[in-house]
Amino acid sequence: MSMSFPKQQDPAEAAKRKAAEWAASQVKEGMAVGLGSGSTSALVIEEVGRRVAAGLHITAIATSEQSHRQALSLGIPITDFAHQPHLDLTIDGADEVQNETLHLIKGHGGALLREKIVAMASGRLLIAVDPRKLVTKLGSVFTVPVEVVPFGWETTAARLREQGFAPELRVKEDGEPYVTDGHHYILHCNLPQSGLSAENAAEAFNRTVGVVEHGLFLGMASQVVIGSIEGIQILEPSR
Amino acid sequence: MSMSFPKQQDPAEAAKRKAAEWAASQVKEGMAVGLGSGSTSALVIEEVGRRVAAGLHITAIATSEQSHRQALSLGIPITDFAHQPHLDLTIDGADEVQNETLHLIKGHGGALLREKIVAMASGRLLIAVDPRKLVTKLGSVFTVPVEVVPFGWETTAARLREQGFAPELRVKEDGEPYVTDGHHYILHCNLPQSGLSAENAAEAFNRTVGVVEHGLFLGMASQVVIGSIEGIQILEPSR
Repeated sequence: MSMSFPKQQDPAEAAKRKAAEWAASQVKEGMAVGLGSGSTSALVIEEVGRRVAAGLHITAIATSEQSHRQALSLGIPITDFAHQPHLDLTIDGADEVQNETLHLIKGHGGALLREKIVAMASGRLLIAVDPRKLVTKLGSVFTVPVEVVPFGWETTAARLREQGFAPELRVKEDGEPYVTDGHHYILHCNLPQSGLSAENAAEAFNRTVGVVEHGLFLGMASQVVIGSIEGIQILEPSR
Repeated sequence: MSMSFPKQQDPAEAAKRKAAEWAASQVKEGMAVGLGSGSTSALVIEEVGRRVAAGLHITAIATSEQSHRQALSLGIPITDFAHQPHLDLTIDGADEVQNETLHLIKGHGGALLREKIVAMASGRLLIAVDPRKLVTKLGSVFTVPVEVVPFGWETTAARLREQGFAPELRVKEDGEPYVTDGHHYILHCNLPQSGLSAENAAEAFNRTVGVVEHGLFLGMASQVVIGSIEGIQILEPSR
């Protein structure tokens, strides 16, 4: 039986907010910032919006339509890659963070492609999570979302199946395929079942025709901030 | 000064038609066939349409909206990958064919992504070309078209530039970006300038975040049929 809390006292919510507050404090005057997707990122954007209202000058690019709308509604100045090809800092969440390496699984919010493009354009990628996201082995809890081209997705799925990933199409409540902001489908892939290391799985996804991008973010996180009711913990990759 | 011929007597047109006729003759009763894109493929589809009208029973999947419409207009029965995950034979053209390896550059018609997905789903990939497409080194004449995600394409181009590919955005006559059937942009990449082998360039493209697919088709062609006014020549890969 799980306990129920009013939202402000929900321990996970409080933990996320602690992580989000510290992450938002890393945004400095004049920075170009990438704004992530998901529940923790929404708290980050809320906090950044508060600081902008109080006089902080930044520009931002969001990793999803939803974050984009939230940022706009809070008056955060939005730019694009034509004007701002390099970002100073991106703050985003993650589905899983592997101890020590800080390898990530991302994309269960459905925005992995833009999240990865924004992360690649950033000098520093800061991941804000609550403690439940930490795992000793990537893929223990979550599948790896793999974004694929709709045309012939059945054949792409067949080739991922042959490689042991047991792919499952992400569908909406009405049973129709979930379509990403980039007009693609998502296949949820099982990493442990493939028997591959995260590195080898990433290579396999990259080589598979029909795959646009995958939710393994390897060697990309600069720091991970983990919030808890007591405070925060900051991890850096040991590699 | 180039000479001008009525279309039926144009030597390149006659050569393409010879290749297309032989390629179309490889389509047998009951096959599931992939139909390619471009001028030679249009001749193949015309010939296949003639054979279907004469009683041949096949099903087909086309690699572009244009080929799809041509096949429909000729009464060729169209299927999709949900019903037909495996194709017996795909016939397509190419921009360049490298001697001996039969490595290809494809996609200057703008349909490389679907062409590659269809080719990957096929037991046999037959490439029909005229003799001008044969090269001793891939990239001698054509750039490699690389299909990329529109979101952040400027940062994807910057990372390809750093790797030596001197990418150029494909634009329409009005200067706006050319958009593929899959809602992506095309960056034309210079293979010789990168100094990379075709194999290493393919790996580099696959690893570059924002790249959906590239126009290097390595080790994929089962046969290449080269038409000329005198007749045809059939090449098989020596590897």
